[in-house]
Amino acid sequence: MPQLGLLCRKAWAAALLSQLVRPPHAVSIRTVGGHSQIAEAVLTSQLKPREEKPNFVIKVPKGTRDLSPQQMVVREKILDTVVSCFKRHGAKGLDTPAFELKDMLTEKSEENFGLMYDLKDQGGELLSLRYDLTVPFARYLAMNKLKKMKRYQVGKVWRRESPAIVQGRYREFCQCDFDIAGQFDPMIPDAECLKIICEILSGLQLGDFLIKVNDRRIVDGMFAVCGVPESKFRTICASMDKLDKMSWKDVRHEMVVKKGLAPEVADRIGDYVQCHGGISLLEEMFQDPRLSQSKQALEGLRDLKLLFEYLTLFGIAEKISFDLSLARGLDYYTGVIYEAVLLKPAAQAGVESLNVGSVAAGGRYDDLVATFDPKGYKVPCVGLSIGVERIFYIVEQKMKTLGEKVRTSETQVFVATPQKNFLRERLKIIAELWDAGIKAEMLYKENPKLLTQLHYCEDMGIPLVVIIGEQEQKEGTLKLRSVASREEVAIKRENLVAEIQKQLSLS
Amino acid sequence: MPQLGLLCRKAWAAALLSQLVRPPHAVSIRTVGGHSQIAEAVLTSQLKPREEKPNFVIKVPKGTRDLSPQQMVVREKILDTVVSCFKRHGAKGLDTPAFELKDMLTEKSEENFGLMYDLKDQGGELLSLRYDLTVPFARYLAMNKLKKMKRYQVGKVWRRESPAIVQGRYREFCQCDFDIAGQFDPMIPDAECLKIICEILSGLQLGDFLIKVNDRRIVDGMFAVCGVPESKFRTICASMDKLDKMSWKDVRHEMVVKKGLAPEVADRIGDYVQCHGGISLLEEMFQDPRLSQSKQALEGLRDLKLLFEYLTLFGIAEKISFDLSLARGLDYYTGVIYEAVLLKPAAQAGVESLNVGSVAAGGRYDDLVATFDPKGYKVPCVGLSIGVERIFYIVEQKMKTLGEKVRTSETQVFVATPQKNFLRERLKIIAELWDAGIKAEMLYKENPKLLTQLHYCEDMGIPLVVIIGEQEQKEGTLKLRSVASREEVAIKRENLVAEIQKQLSLS
Repeated sequence: MPQLGLLCRKAWAAALLSQLVRPPHAVSIRTVGGHSQIAEAVLTSQLKPREEKPNFVIKVPKGTRDLSPQQMVVREKILDTVVSCFKRHGAKGLDTPAFELKDMLTEKSEENFGLMYDLKDQGGELLSLRYDLTVPFARYLAMNKLKKMKRYQVGKVWRRESPAIVQGRYREFCQCDFDIAGQFDPMIPDAECLKIICEILSGLQLGDFLIKVNDRRIVDGMFAVCGVPESKFRTICASMDKLDKMSWKDVRHEMVVKKGLAPEVADRIGDYVQCHGGISLLEEMFQDPRLSQSKQALEGLRDLKLLFEYLTLFGIAEKISFDLSLARGLDYYTGVIYEAVLLKPAAQAGVESLNVGSVAAGGRYDDLVATFDPKGYKVPCVGLSIGVERIFYIVEQKMKTLGEKVRTSETQVFVATPQKNFLRERLKIIAELWDAGIKAEMLYKENPKLLTQLHYCEDMGIPLVVIIGEQEQKEGTLKLRSVASREEVAIKRENLVAEIQKQLSLS
Repeated sequence: MPQLGLLCRKAWAAALLSQLVRPPHAVSIRTVGGHSQIAEAVLTSQLKPREEKPNFVIKVPKGTRDLSPQQMVVREKILDTVVSCFKRHGAKGLDTPAFELKDMLTEKSEENFGLMYDLKDQGGELLSLRYDLTVPFARYLAMNKLKKMKRYQVGKVWRRESPAIVQGRYREFCQCDFDIAGQFDPMIPDAECLKIICEILSGLQLGDFLIKVNDRRIVDGMFAVCGVPESKFRTICASMDKLDKMSWKDVRHEMVVKKGLAPEVADRIGDYVQCHGGISLLEEMFQDPRLSQSKQALEGLRDLKLLFEYLTLFGIAEKISFDLSLARGLDYYTGVIYEAVLLKPAAQAGVESLNVGSVAAGGRYDDLVATFDPKGYKVPCVGLSIGVERIFYIVEQKMKTLGEKVRTSETQVFVATPQKNFLRERLKIIAELWDAGIKAEMLYKENPKLLTQLHYCEDMGIPLVVIIGEQEQKEGTLKLRSVASREEVAIKRENLVAEIQKQLSLS
């Protein structure tokens, strides 16, 4: 599945800003004192290249970023919600290599052809980094001659978007895909895909959302009856796909001026792309004098009608909008297509710059697997992709506005001492805790100050402290301190683990 | 951290075999019938390249592999054990891009320099895929001016190993790293790293294991007192690193013949390399007339002595062996180094070909971060890497021998019907289950056969079946069937979710 839509300029600016928090630094040339011979050896070899380029800069590649521990916590929460939903629907996990033979990826999608990261030819195969998880999935099915599979995959994909034309996208980003492959009765898997999108977006509590639905056959049928020359179908479809970022006026201008479409043809398309609604609009289109002339369009309309029936049984019909302006960029779609957008997203959080376009999308692609299969054996597929990067951005912004602080570690107990020379005792205690499966930390100092230790607990949000000192050692006890209430109780040394487990179960 | 050791030939053969289960297929050129206009368009464009290379083959790149759902389940179990241990020790998560500026990676490690996957220069920055998670971690610390951090990272790394010389390695593989960065009192973080390795290897139940420990300063001191010219330190160290795969005789031959070391010097090294043991050996080495001449070596010995004291407090000293033959390939180590090996691994499982070399390794690298820092500011680091690919291979082989079958989905309930025309009822029921967070599946057929549905449950190991038919619909009930016992009970339609949750809590 493709990455979805765009961040608005504001969002992009914010994203940029967060990057600029860590500006690159020029590295000067100097040796580092006090290291061993070998370090010397390493270092000299390492510093050599610097001499050649004195204004060497520390940065990550353009369009990529590190995820800090704070960001990782948010990311993990989102992925948990997504993956647990995929598993709730019986999906199996799959992993494929980060790169594929270039042949496997090229020409599966005109859209992405130019965006691929190729690996350098270092003697051997010609390789490219995957730009989505759909093509590798299709390759996997064909390679293993699988006729059906319900799989999910979470992984990074890479696209050399030119930031000039595509703002707010990262060149490395994470995708979460769910796909159902196999020959089944119409619209049953398709309906489940839409149900999954609803479950995930509700589960993530991103505010109200809407899923636009259309069908590639309706789009092509519409083009045909409006008088678009077949040779222009794809390029006009690509223009139409920009309707979520551009006004119809601008899209029309592109169609007529850039792509040489007759104005009256463009205007006929214009009449249709204004239309969106529910089952009523569907009925209307069945009666539409022009559209009803297209066999393809009627097939699409019939399937959408059945789809809406199933969506009603799933109780999600009111979340779905039949939208004739929805085109979806990718070439490989052959049937139902959909795209989820947030409605005044997260407004309640008072966050402004959150118009991030679509947060989930997908569709049916019945012919992709056949292009890999020696005998051209068809394995119909339908799937969806969750725009985690978008969602991640929204959740992050929300948390910033609400001033929510995330814990970056899960440590439950800290082992402290108020006196000197208790390192060995602390080591014995913490080993006991680890061996009991309790998440525990201590400072890596022989004789740390008690205040330093207690501050660490408050900074890190560690709830419990075990304290060992001279008095405790004499009495064969330990102090158990609650960081929040600052209460302290004495416990028997031998009851350490039991007492802590009790405390943790209470909190 | 580097990838660890080698699979033996047998293991490699087995790995190869499992790959050969899916032989590549030549793709012939033909169009696929019955698809829409757009599919036609896509297809023709897709089939074009085939015409140019008729014997186009479906495969994954050399040295890479897909992970099937079965393998993903095993992989996930292993990663859970590893990551939960890292979290138990208070580590924070981090993610870095798959590729870095080539400058960031080069010359950090002679060993890996030649093994990097470079990206093609497509205009812009010169990039390479990361070959480990340590160098990106050091880059992250320097770039963000972090003076201390306890982090873990799980991710793929890539190395263009030539299979000729390095058997059984994948060119794409997963690493799990834990590192402690910061200026602390000696050997406390180092001891924790060894404790973590013990916890993980015990937790994974791979059978008995041993952790070899040495110190780079002892290695270099030993070379110095044996009379190795300083210029030959690294290359002789590299030869020594092969001792787990080659006999001393062969290593000596390489040192003398290939690397021009004086025979008597090699023999002096030979005397040391035979030595391994516990604290007693350590004491012995303090007294060693030759080694005790090296200030460096004494520093190393002193640290190891302190380390053993802490390991004793952690209760893991008997798992550790001071081994003078341990060298570790990587250049950036500056202090303690360690490597964990399995002792007659998984013998109890009757598995033969499981001599997979080291399954975990690491060490101290105090100068790496400084090479990134503009002012050469030093951030001492110590860390470890778990050889998940090895462990994964062992567990997989074990399960094969024990004939253990893994469930590839977590589905709890299947919604079935014995009669025709119950699709809509099934859709309503399954939506209710999903909305209640219950993992549920059904067949994507309008009118599936009951037997087909029940067989599916048995194949997939789904424990419960909800059955809706004419009789149930009349009575306003549902049948709840246990797949194992084949017992069926009638429940009230409105109690569906409650009853199932009860059943699941019991099982």
